[in-house]
Amino acid sequence: MLKEWISDLKPTDEVIAERLERARDELAARQMKVKEKGLPVLVVLDGWGAAGKGSALGKMIKNMDPRFFKCETLSEPSPDEKRRPFLYRYFIRIPAAGQFAFFDGSWMGEVTSRFLSGETSKKDYKTQLTSVKRFERQLSDNGCLVVKFFFHISEKVQKKRLKALESDPTTAWRVSDRDRWQNKHYGKCLDVYDEYLETTNQFVAPWYFINSTDRKWAELQMTEILISAIDTALKNTENRSVPILQNTFPLSPMPKLSSVPLDKTLTDEEYRTELDRLQMRLKQLHNELYLRKIPVIIAYEGWDAAGKGGNIKRLASALDPRGYEVHPIASPEPAEKARHYLWRFWKRLPKDGHIAIFDRTWYGRVMVERIEGFCTENDWQRAYNEINEFEKELSDWGAVIIKFWVQIDKNTQLARFTDRQNTPEKQWKITDEDWRNREKWDLYETAVDEMMQKTSTEFAPWHIIESNDKKYARIKALKTVISACEEKLKD
Amino acid sequence: MLKEWISDLKPTDEVIAERLERARDELAARQMKVKEKGLPVLVVLDGWGAAGKGSALGKMIKNMDPRFFKCETLSEPSPDEKRRPFLYRYFIRIPAAGQFAFFDGSWMGEVTSRFLSGETSKKDYKTQLTSVKRFERQLSDNGCLVVKFFFHISEKVQKKRLKALESDPTTAWRVSDRDRWQNKHYGKCLDVYDEYLETTNQFVAPWYFINSTDRKWAELQMTEILISAIDTALKNTENRSVPILQNTFPLSPMPKLSSVPLDKTLTDEEYRTELDRLQMRLKQLHNELYLRKIPVIIAYEGWDAAGKGGNIKRLASALDPRGYEVHPIASPEPAEKARHYLWRFWKRLPKDGHIAIFDRTWYGRVMVERIEGFCTENDWQRAYNEINEFEKELSDWGAVIIKFWVQIDKNTQLARFTDRQNTPEKQWKITDEDWRNREKWDLYETAVDEMMQKTSTEFAPWHIIESNDKKYARIKALKTVISACEEKLKD
Repeated sequence: MLKEWISDLKPTDEVIAERLERARDELAARQMKVKEKGLPVLVVLDGWGAAGKGSALGKMIKNMDPRFFKCETLSEPSPDEKRRPFLYRYFIRIPAAGQFAFFDGSWMGEVTSRFLSGETSKKDYKTQLTSVKRFERQLSDNGCLVVKFFFHISEKVQKKRLKALESDPTTAWRVSDRDRWQNKHYGKCLDVYDEYLETTNQFVAPWYFINSTDRKWAELQMTEILISAIDTALKNTENRSVPILQNTFPLSPMPKLSSVPLDKTLTDEEYRTELDRLQMRLKQLHNELYLRKIPVIIAYEGWDAAGKGGNIKRLASALDPRGYEVHPIASPEPAEKARHYLWRFWKRLPKDGHIAIFDRTWYGRVMVERIEGFCTENDWQRAYNEINEFEKELSDWGAVIIKFWVQIDKNTQLARFTDRQNTPEKQWKITDEDWRNREKWDLYETAVDEMMQKTSTEFAPWHIIESNDKKYARIKALKTVISACEEKLKD
Repeated sequence: MLKEWISDLKPTDEVIAERLERARDELAARQMKVKEKGLPVLVVLDGWGAAGKGSALGKMIKNMDPRFFKCETLSEPSPDEKRRPFLYRYFIRIPAAGQFAFFDGSWMGEVTSRFLSGETSKKDYKTQLTSVKRFERQLSDNGCLVVKFFFHISEKVQKKRLKALESDPTTAWRVSDRDRWQNKHYGKCLDVYDEYLETTNQFVAPWYFINSTDRKWAELQMTEILISAIDTALKNTENRSVPILQNTFPLSPMPKLSSVPLDKTLTDEEYRTELDRLQMRLKQLHNELYLRKIPVIIAYEGWDAAGKGGNIKRLASALDPRGYEVHPIASPEPAEKARHYLWRFWKRLPKDGHIAIFDRTWYGRVMVERIEGFCTENDWQRAYNEINEFEKELSDWGAVIIKFWVQIDKNTQLARFTDRQNTPEKQWKITDEDWRNREKWDLYETAVDEMMQKTSTEFAPWHIIESNDKKYARIKALKTVISACEEKLKD
């Protein structure tokens, strides 16, 4: 599509100057509206080396209030970022509600240059394109405006600009090896960019091409398009509803909670023998996982007082403390509420070879947020697919994903609540909210059943841990983690 | 994407029966809401031969009120339809606001089977895919819900079903040669379908795959997905705003109206000689165009009293009355208002080899509708691109497109208005509305200037006809039509 693209007629210099002045003022005015309406705006600048992205951006933001935007230059990932899924460093930088983020360079550059250099196979490249499309769609579906610019210049103009930069010692450093390579292989790059642009030109995040031969004109095009995109998005901030996509991931069948027998127990004797043996085994595995750089993500959900805390403790105590982290998840903080609901989990992803244990998880979206009305029906209905996509991303990255639902019956919960209430050193564990949640048991049960039906994928299955007997539950959790890791290590 | 698709787990027969009953009731209830909110719903059923589209559709609509839906079986285009752009027969069948249209078979079948049979080249196929994407996006942008289903069965299941149908004399007729061919070349078809589905899987009109191995389950999947899609769309019927896409068509520069000199005149003598000569020439050309099956579309816009009527008369009188039609365009009728604003123009497209002359056109969207607030700002801003896409479709079909702006100055208009008012036999030509429009001259001038800047594409350019002297104007219009047709006939 870039190849066939014909840019609009360039206006005269006077017209450009006049429109530019107006556009700059208008952008400044839009910024206040964006703030007021709480719209997050992500602006992505891609394009040819020496096309003038940076200078256009520099000029455009001059009239903006620096408190409400951030510019990020995203060239090579840092060593730390390389140990995360490739979208990690972009996801953690998404703007908050009412804020702008400008990315000078994006996932496009990273993904295409790795493919061009042969580092990524055709197959992996296709998978990455799918990931990119999902990422952009999720941002948009969750209310973020995504505007993507591609700064276009011809082979000739690029060559001329690179030469000019190189010949001046004060600017020579700005020409990278990649720029030189790009100009030398302009045609090959154009083919790959063209296909990339076509594939990722989604309605929810369309591409806008900038004829970048003239710098002022480039700035004008970008500013005017951005204003138009903001105006459209501002009108859509309220009452948005987004189509619910069909599940396309392989699902494993899950029983309904009501049909799970909870009579399984272990004697103290059995428990202690098993615990020792399994913790020892897990310790060995943790070491192997570390050496093989395999990340592990363990998600705990379950009823209040089901015994998640004690269960996690038995798991964690087998692990090398330098190689794991436990993330207790409470209600989101303001900075978290202002972003895509998965943002706080992306931020907490482990490095490869590390283990992250989540005490409550992203499934809050389809449980508490659904039941308490913290998000709209459309939001939580969409979330099943969004979460599957998120976990697919983790799985593609190479992670082992284990999800536990810690199950008890209603009477057992009552007994434990009462015990907590009556035992001074346990009283901190029980709150009024726990009692209120208990009243909504049936609503939760329906939500949990639906959640497990819809999100137990083959790459991230749910495991029900029967926890009327906590000892049995702990052993089962350990065994499940061990067998999932062993399975992965066979690969 | 179809190849990698993994369908959801099939529920038990009891669960299917139970959910089906509920879903059928819900769909009936949704129908009333669709009616109430004025949502147009286009449901497209594609898929493998013998996948059971027809029977699933038959069952689904059983509970619907037949006053509010239409089923269309779209297999082969009729001879008459073949003489129109390939999307014509689909566009003219789009549903009205508050109505459902079910298409059993769609453009997918037509486009892919022509490509599979080698009738369409790879290049033309790509162009058609672009057309399809634009068509679906335009429907959605203009408020129509588009739901696309692909009924999927394996090669084996298809073979078995075809055999069963063939072996029973009462059903053997239902197996077409195309079905047999499809089963024999299942793998090849799958490749083409897969790419088609991937390419046309747009956010504005996503694909939903139906595992069609079990008939009841297929009906259930389709019904539930349709209900979900309707619910989403119902929430979005108000205050919708759609991103304004960038122009990607080659534009020709156009002067501002205020800079067009209007002092050109012809003597009676010159006029009569030229008129005879040019009308003769046009007559010849019309014949050639007819033989070469080239359609011609001539669009007239201009100020009230600019002389459009007389101009059209001189053009038409040169043509064979069997080969042209003049379409006077007034404000849209209720059936037209209830659909995409281009619908009434699609319906009036000529057959190939014929000439259609429009007295006022689809440009009403960006003139009167813009100025009188008959559509939203987002609607008319989007329209420039939508109209360019429409005209591109006509151009790809092979049409000559000529667009006239008949220009006079404000004083000339006043003189003509006054003359009409004072001449009894001309009084029918002047209304209060003309006077009201005259007061908005400046608003119109701004709108016309913007319109001509944004829609004068190389394949459908605007021509300004200076008409202070009507004789000059008529001769210029004739010359313009002749040279455009001569140009086309050179190809």
